[in-house]
Amino acid sequence: MAEHSRPGEFDLIAKFLRPLATAESGAASLTDDAAVLTTKNGCRLVVTMDTLVAGVHFLEFTPPHFIAAKALRVNLSDLAAMGAEPAYYTMSLSFPTYGEIDYDTNWMDSFSQALSVEQDLYDITLVGGDTVSTPGPLSISITAFGWVEPGQEILRSGANIGDIVYVSGAVGDSVLGLTAVQGGFSELEHSYLEIITERHHRPQPRLNLGQRLYGLASSAIDISDGLVQDLGHICKASNVSATIRAIDVPLSEPGMSLVQNDPDLIKTILSGGDDYELIFTVPPEWQQSITSLAEELDLSLTPIGVIEATNQGDLVTVEDSTGTTVAMPTSGYRHF
Amino acid sequence: MAEHSRPGEFDLIAKFLRPLATAESGAASLTDDAAVLTTKNGCRLVVTMDTLVAGVHFLEFTPPHFIAAKALRVNLSDLAAMGAEPAYYTMSLSFPTYGEIDYDTNWMDSFSQALSVEQDLYDITLVGGDTVSTPGPLSISITAFGWVEPGQEILRSGANIGDIVYVSGAVGDSVLGLTAVQGGFSELEHSYLEIITERHHRPQPRLNLGQRLYGLASSAIDISDGLVQDLGHICKASNVSATIRAIDVPLSEPGMSLVQNDPDLIKTILSGGDDYELIFTVPPEWQQSITSLAEELDLSLTPIGVIEATNQGDLVTVEDSTGTTVAMPTSGYRHF
Repeated sequence: MAEHSRPGEFDLIAKFLRPLATAESGAASLTDDAAVLTTKNGCRLVVTMDTLVAGVHFLEFTPPHFIAAKALRVNLSDLAAMGAEPAYYTMSLSFPTYGEIDYDTNWMDSFSQALSVEQDLYDITLVGGDTVSTPGPLSISITAFGWVEPGQEILRSGANIGDIVYVSGAVGDSVLGLTAVQGGFSELEHSYLEIITERHHRPQPRLNLGQRLYGLASSAIDISDGLVQDLGHICKASNVSATIRAIDVPLSEPGMSLVQNDPDLIKTILSGGDDYELIFTVPPEWQQSITSLAEELDLSLTPIGVIEATNQGDLVTVEDSTGTTVAMPTSGYRHF
Repeated sequence: MAEHSRPGEFDLIAKFLRPLATAESGAASLTDDAAVLTTKNGCRLVVTMDTLVAGVHFLEFTPPHFIAAKALRVNLSDLAAMGAEPAYYTMSLSFPTYGEIDYDTNWMDSFSQALSVEQDLYDITLVGGDTVSTPGPLSISITAFGWVEPGQEILRSGANIGDIVYVSGAVGDSVLGLTAVQGGFSELEHSYLEIITERHHRPQPRLNLGQRLYGLASSAIDISDGLVQDLGHICKASNVSATIRAIDVPLSEPGMSLVQNDPDLIKTILSGGDDYELIFTVPPEWQQSITSLAEELDLSLTPIGVIEATNQGDLVTVEDSTGTTVAMPTSGYRHF
């Protein structure tokens, strides 16, 4: 363990972070006490905050460009789940004073360049934040802001009995990708390993989908804790329960290949977190519109189950292809 | 070092944080992906973010109610320096998984009750956030939002040559209080020790003052890095320099008593951070209005120097009572 020399706080902000804040004059190039932002006329402000800690939310030796992408995207995914349009973010960086990784100008260069790419991709701008040192691990807190038309936000609490449960994209690649990053699944073919690793490092926030769900979906959430756990959050907020069919849960090609070899992996996939796909519930009369939307967005939107009345049992029941209940681990990712 | 059992994330949010979010329905009791907030008609959104880390920004064994107050107030102070009115905040709590302090329900109870008191005092409401675990120290990130009428925000960049430099309240108690908390100044009388300790733990964000400075002050900043350093930020942003008179810098009674014993302490006072008083610059024609404002707010507002043209030397020059330049440490608090 060595103490590192690192750019001072003001140099670091000037060199690496200020260029990320040029698109919004109210950010005052990060040189004032706070940003002064113009609100979007007639819109509501959507605010979310997520913290990622090295060794907890990502492996310590993850390349900085992956860390940058993930830190921003997990927040964008929360905006997506509300149907909001991204606008601004603030970021607090806590840098370790000791340790094996040198968070030097090379690291910051790679990190801030990746953020710049993300900003262009998702039309969001840095407007403020903080940089501090810590005797602990690298930690990144981001607060993201977005806009939504009044009443068009999609909450967790709107699911009704009889609604169809949908999920976007493919589920499970992130938790499988984590195993791959840690050296697992060495038998899997190389292109498959690359796919799940990429999906682990760079989840796709479903912003276009979220912004199109108003009027179609009765509730929505993104998968951060795990499909079963997050659908449980919808059920709890909506005072309903849900039954999903494991066989209908959409898997990627690598996911299918791995489950074929080890059918028990489906439990890991259903309870693993960090997919950042959207789970949403749709009244049966809008199913055809969802099919059209999937075609238009070129994104698979798959019905996996149905919303039911609350019962005394689990919020979410998983059935296998014979209709038998699959026993699930008690919870998904828990950060405690 | 023992691993602690602690309430799970969802229990912790439900029990201790949800009660802090009841005043704003758009926070959805912290049960959704993000908060959906109504913006204040015709106002601009002021956003600031500060992170406090145990062992860096506060001593590890600081009682939780002091940590809560400071974490929120340092952000409120940034809103004050912009002339903004507080509205909302989001908070991310990173809890150590190991260590000597048990961040258990007693700790959370004290912490959240203190936040509740702060919320009432400053009319601000929790609307979201995150709780994570970390192998590092306790860390608290807060993003605070406020409102300001368009054009009424007070920036760092407006200081002009000939403006008078003012500071609110008394300077230096926080850095002196830090020494006291660490067992120093044992010769000081008990009531004085209490004053500077309290001022260290619970700075007063000058919100009322900040909101009244529009039309009077040409620039403003709060003292977080140190009086000389923060006045330097104004000078840099405004492309000017400043000269202040050490003898005119307002000290509290404990501060005066300590400087009488050890005149060199004035350098510590002028470069010590965390006072959260406001430094602001005022065109000479508005000095009488500042005097009236001080009376109205029952808050001392003291002229300590003047804004001058840039020169090749320091941004801020400190003179003693004979007009001789006082050599200052090169910078105030630096978190790197």
